[in-house]
Amino acid sequence: MMLKVTLQTLNIGIKKNKHDAVCLKLPSSSITAMVTTKNKYAAAPVILSKKNLLQASPKYLLINSGNANACTGRLGAQNSLNCTKFLSKKLNCNPEEVLLFSTGVIGRQLPINDIKHKIANNAFEFKSTWKSASKAIMTTDKFKKIYSKSFTLNNTKININAICKGAGMIEPNMATMLAFICTDAKIKKSMLNKILKDITDNSFNSISVDGDMSTNDSVVLISTGEKDKIDFLKNSKNYKILVHELTLCCQKLSKMIIQDGEGATKVITINIHKAKSNRQARLIAYKLANSNLIKTAMFGADPNWGRIIAKLGSIENINYSTDKVQLKINNILIFKNGIQSNKCNLKSLNKLMKNKEVVVDIFLNSGNASHSLLTSDLTHEYVHINSAYTT
Amino acid sequence: MMLKVTLQTLNIGIKKNKHDAVCLKLPSSSITAMVTTKNKYAAAPVILSKKNLLQASPKYLLINSGNANACTGRLGAQNSLNCTKFLSKKLNCNPEEVLLFSTGVIGRQLPINDIKHKIANNAFEFKSTWKSASKAIMTTDKFKKIYSKSFTLNNTKININAICKGAGMIEPNMATMLAFICTDAKIKKSMLNKILKDITDNSFNSISVDGDMSTNDSVVLISTGEKDKIDFLKNSKNYKILVHELTLCCQKLSKMIIQDGEGATKVITINIHKAKSNRQARLIAYKLANSNLIKTAMFGADPNWGRIIAKLGSIENINYSTDKVQLKINNILIFKNGIQSNKCNLKSLNKLMKNKEVVVDIFLNSGNASHSLLTSDLTHEYVHINSAYTT
Repeated sequence: MMLKVTLQTLNIGIKKNKHDAVCLKLPSSSITAMVTTKNKYAAAPVILSKKNLLQASPKYLLINSGNANACTGRLGAQNSLNCTKFLSKKLNCNPEEVLLFSTGVIGRQLPINDIKHKIANNAFEFKSTWKSASKAIMTTDKFKKIYSKSFTLNNTKININAICKGAGMIEPNMATMLAFICTDAKIKKSMLNKILKDITDNSFNSISVDGDMSTNDSVVLISTGEKDKIDFLKNSKNYKILVHELTLCCQKLSKMIIQDGEGATKVITINIHKAKSNRQARLIAYKLANSNLIKTAMFGADPNWGRIIAKLGSIENINYSTDKVQLKINNILIFKNGIQSNKCNLKSLNKLMKNKEVVVDIFLNSGNASHSLLTSDLTHEYVHINSAYTT
Repeated sequence: MMLKVTLQTLNIGIKKNKHDAVCLKLPSSSITAMVTTKNKYAAAPVILSKKNLLQASPKYLLINSGNANACTGRLGAQNSLNCTKFLSKKLNCNPEEVLLFSTGVIGRQLPINDIKHKIANNAFEFKSTWKSASKAIMTTDKFKKIYSKSFTLNNTKININAICKGAGMIEPNMATMLAFICTDAKIKKSMLNKILKDITDNSFNSISVDGDMSTNDSVVLISTGEKDKIDFLKNSKNYKILVHELTLCCQKLSKMIIQDGEGATKVITINIHKAKSNRQARLIAYKLANSNLIKTAMFGADPNWGRIIAKLGSIENINYSTDKVQLKINNILIFKNGIQSNKCNLKSLNKLMKNKEVVVDIFLNSGNASHSLLTSDLTHEYVHINSAYTT
């Protein structure tokens, strides 16, 4: 049996003549968990959705593309509230039972009168497909980001359906990511929150296109609770399988975001091994992932490993032994004992680095912690996209 | 009377058929202060020069371009030591009386036999000009970075001569900066060290092309002590004038480095005002300066102020009141009270941002600390330069 989350894609007057919104209808048994941006200028819909989630159990999610409704002050907050009111009136629920998500340009007000009119007059039959929904939330994404999988536990089929959008915008602006993951497994609220935090730490919170955190980032995990015969006691085998499957889902979607990163030509995996702490491994991975010198070298397949080691050396307030550090690129040992390894042939490395996927492994050999991160290269296309006018 | 530091430009066999080194000869009354990179993989010459400066008073400085001698292990350290030995033999001093500076590609060994031969056979007449010296230390710098000024204190003329190199390399590699500032003012060693720290904090340590710290960065301040009739008691009027002039010198050279930043088309000044602490002001300035979304918007003169506010909001572990923040670009009020100012006209801002100089002022209105930083824009040319092969 399929998951009972149903969808309605529609135009609410932000984009011209195409779908710019999707509404998700959740079964009444659903439980919802959400993580959002830590940006101090979190957008109005993010602030409202966090408040609503504390007050009620969500029945509908309304997601729009084309306008982030961020840095829009009191009017922006009022507009978000009104969107939930329009939808609740139309669909006969309380405004607090609606969660709102927006993505697009920052600093512009929503066309609230258009939205009011369009919501009132649109038919909400909830017969749209996940595919059309994943398209309606795209901004400058080049391809749809959709995931679905079924697996069997105790002879019961468990379904996962998910969509997300990545680092693009209607007009070049803040990279914004939104993801919505639904499963019919029945999970308790406290457990759902923990699972969401854990799976995002190892997927959406372990990618970087350009090191800029959006005002609108949100990931939502919904348990519709339909498959209520299966227990997920903490750390049970079932629990582990479910978390594994949900992690896989989020990692696949994360990778799609990186592949579709602005101007990206390749996916770079950065693995930090044997660090003193998780914090240290994570910090190093992010510093390397956001180095323009490394990202441009990756674009040009330049086997210029000095940039990686120099970046590593420049990170302040961390301790490791420089002599013990080893660097591999695409599994070739490049750097060891403080100098270039004699196994490193720069010409053949240059050839390997032309792959669409490049893996950088750094062994600190100073502890047992590790972290992996995905990033994209820095290309002419990135500069082109992001230097274009918003005017 | 002119400053008595004399110079010899020469070829020591790293580059083909052009000057790749300069030797500075210091008067015996000289006192030298130095600040260097904090990179954990500091290059062999940096480590050796720090050691030598503790042991002896420098008589000669040897600076080479074309090879950074970084990540070169024990052989690299031995090669650096040998360079000081070759020069000390030629010029009849102790090896510890030579300081060594290198800039260029990382991870390659120096052509030490060529260097030995060239130093032994080159004439050291010390009749080269500052101009030729500033040229000899260039790598991919597009113009020479040279500064000279005289000013009068107590009827005595004080001279400052300085050269530096910026963010370029013989083959695209780590941005490396070296600067050498000489004055004939007589300054005590402890005071010279303090002055150097203070002036670099407000000049060379307040610029960023791409957020990557080199393995070879060094700034050297030399007091030749010739003008020994003038006292510089701490905080006296003379002291303040001298520090002011040396700061000006370093700021002019810093600005040249930014103007000549890889692919840069403009200089962006970021001023953070009324922060809670200097640390906070500095942190925010660097985060904005290194945001690719902001740097590409600057390149395209895109008045996309949402990127600046979103970046500000994303900085973790700092406290300020988001409601009090004001943003000006080229002196136009853009953002106030959490929304776009009604004085902001995006079309006219777009025109103003086409200037070669753009000034971003952020008023946090949460304290009394401030910091200013210079950075460059992120351009197609930057990607082009840095994605080229080293092979």
